[in-house]
Amino acid sequence: MKKKILMAPFAALLALAPLSAQEPEKKEYPSPNAIVDAAPADDWTSIAASDLLVMDLASDAKGEARRVIIQLIPPPFSQGWVGNIRKLAAAKFWDGTSINRVQDNYVVQWGDAGYDNPESGETEQKALPDDLVEVPESEYDVHMHMEEKIHLSHNLQLESPADAYASWGYFDQGWPIASDTVSKWPVHCYGAVGVGRNLSPDTGSGAELYTVIGHAPRHLDRNIAVVGRIIEGMEHLSSLPRGKGQLGFYADASKRVPIQSIRIGSNLPPEDQPKFEYLSTVSGTFFEYADARANRRDPFFIKPAGGADICNIPVPVRRVMTK
Amino acid sequence: MKKKILMAPFAALLALAPLSAQEPEKKEYPSPNAIVDAAPADDWTSIAASDLLVMDLASDAKGEARRVIIQLIPPPFSQGWVGNIRKLAAAKFWDGTSINRVQDNYVVQWGDAGYDNPESGETEQKALPDDLVEVPESEYDVHMHMEEKIHLSHNLQLESPADAYASWGYFDQGWPIASDTVSKWPVHCYGAVGVGRNLSPDTGSGAELYTVIGHAPRHLDRNIAVVGRIIEGMEHLSSLPRGKGQLGFYADASKRVPIQSIRIGSNLPPEDQPKFEYLSTVSGTFFEYADARANRRDPFFIKPAGGADICNIPVPVRRVMTK
Repeated sequence: MKKKILMAPFAALLALAPLSAQEPEKKEYPSPNAIVDAAPADDWTSIAASDLLVMDLASDAKGEARRVIIQLIPPPFSQGWVGNIRKLAAAKFWDGTSINRVQDNYVVQWGDAGYDNPESGETEQKALPDDLVEVPESEYDVHMHMEEKIHLSHNLQLESPADAYASWGYFDQGWPIASDTVSKWPVHCYGAVGVGRNLSPDTGSGAELYTVIGHAPRHLDRNIAVVGRIIEGMEHLSSLPRGKGQLGFYADASKRVPIQSIRIGSNLPPEDQPKFEYLSTVSGTFFEYADARANRRDPFFIKPAGGADICNIPVPVRRVMTK
Repeated sequence: MKKKILMAPFAALLALAPLSAQEPEKKEYPSPNAIVDAAPADDWTSIAASDLLVMDLASDAKGEARRVIIQLIPPPFSQGWVGNIRKLAAAKFWDGTSINRVQDNYVVQWGDAGYDNPESGETEQKALPDDLVEVPESEYDVHMHMEEKIHLSHNLQLESPADAYASWGYFDQGWPIASDTVSKWPVHCYGAVGVGRNLSPDTGSGAELYTVIGHAPRHLDRNIAVVGRIIEGMEHLSSLPRGKGQLGFYADASKRVPIQSIRIGSNLPPEDQPKFEYLSTVSGTFFEYADARANRRDPFFIKPAGGADICNIPVPVRRVMTK
């Protein structure tokens, strides 16, 4: 039996025929959003609450709640860190920590800023749960099996999307993925969540996280682990005041934004569990949507680009509307 | 005499030899920022105050001044709109207008939000200066002369940077430029400033402007005019609360951020004129910097990307320090 690879070869998009070959001049093409809005229910795939990380920040100056929802990346990607993150959330590690860094056109970063102990004169950190694993450098990408390579090369060989960072760019289980034809890895697009680390590549536990708030910093791919993406509440992070310290850290500790709690979605009370779904990246609607992102033909546009980089085709994710 | 083209062929960067071929293992490579910091004074090119647009927003909630400085793009790009913008600033058109739209991962937009006249029941706009020109669609890109094409193709033919949106990407007079080998145009990177318009491509006067606050929306290239870029104070725009109306417009008019004034830099009092310079994109330092952006070898990185998209090589611009 042929192994099923959940993947949308990007090349197919560019080759997609016009929606209506018979009346090319009269046809009014829908916008990418209109295509998504018209997707049949079957094209949407639900996201398990157990794969969501729910971050509640302290209320804003007006007393309004600020909730940020992160979808964790599925296997085979970055699972060492994802496992640690599940343990950290279960241990309530992040409760009482804070957002400490907001660097314009780069990242918002959160975790334990440390506590300046006046007795020792040193900055002390919270203890990490003792069941965390040390994730080796080798997990920054995933080796591809021959069958997968053949499948990909067959689908991508004619018109691989131009990408300055990889040979192939495609979508796997709803996630943007890059490959050098030997291994594959998740990419740093806007809203991607990654694991901060020190100089040595095996020093990222998952306790220190960041998200991208600017142009995709793809040079971080394979150098830092991508473990998820923000699917709701991004504005609570991206609109924070920029830090004035080095690398955008808040020089003034009072500017830090307190984190009330971070929990795995399935550990919240049932009525509070977030329900989301993503547009299947092997669906016909997704092909049509991605083609429209690469070739805008809706009325505003006069020159379709003829292509799109992988981070300019954000996978549609939406809240499940319950009646 | 050969025509001088102020341009940095990107291809040269990727082919650049390691900085020290003799001791590849011991060499500690500088970061892109360290390379820029070490640039000789001659590698910096001054920006005329007459090419700057100085936007003063109303003070923030803490009473702090908010100034945003925009560099206008030089000829031959978008000069119809740039000319209009100079006239609009001279006429003080924007004084008393506002920032009306903040759409996450897309744009911040400002201009005349209109005035709801209770008598007529209609939204009325400020009158535009009557010497503005209507800029035709043909000015969204610039035809390239044969000599320029030959020069570019010679320099870029071996290793053109991968770009999903154009055949060539390069730097011209300090600006990121794309080309389809026939014409050339400025690109929408983070911080690029463009001209809002209605459906018809000749409807953008320059009175309605926006800047990019997310991943480069390159599909806008050649569909909307790029007229400049933010070179200081970007955080005053990018960190604004996101609008909750359609397309990120502020549904509540009280959320709009008032614009006190927008002036051409050379029309400010001499002591208040901003002085900036950019790293010449034909300098050796720029080649070294761009190579380092594409191949991070400084200690944090374990896998250099081997490339960079044009918007991930922001041209360094800095304030001139006066003694």
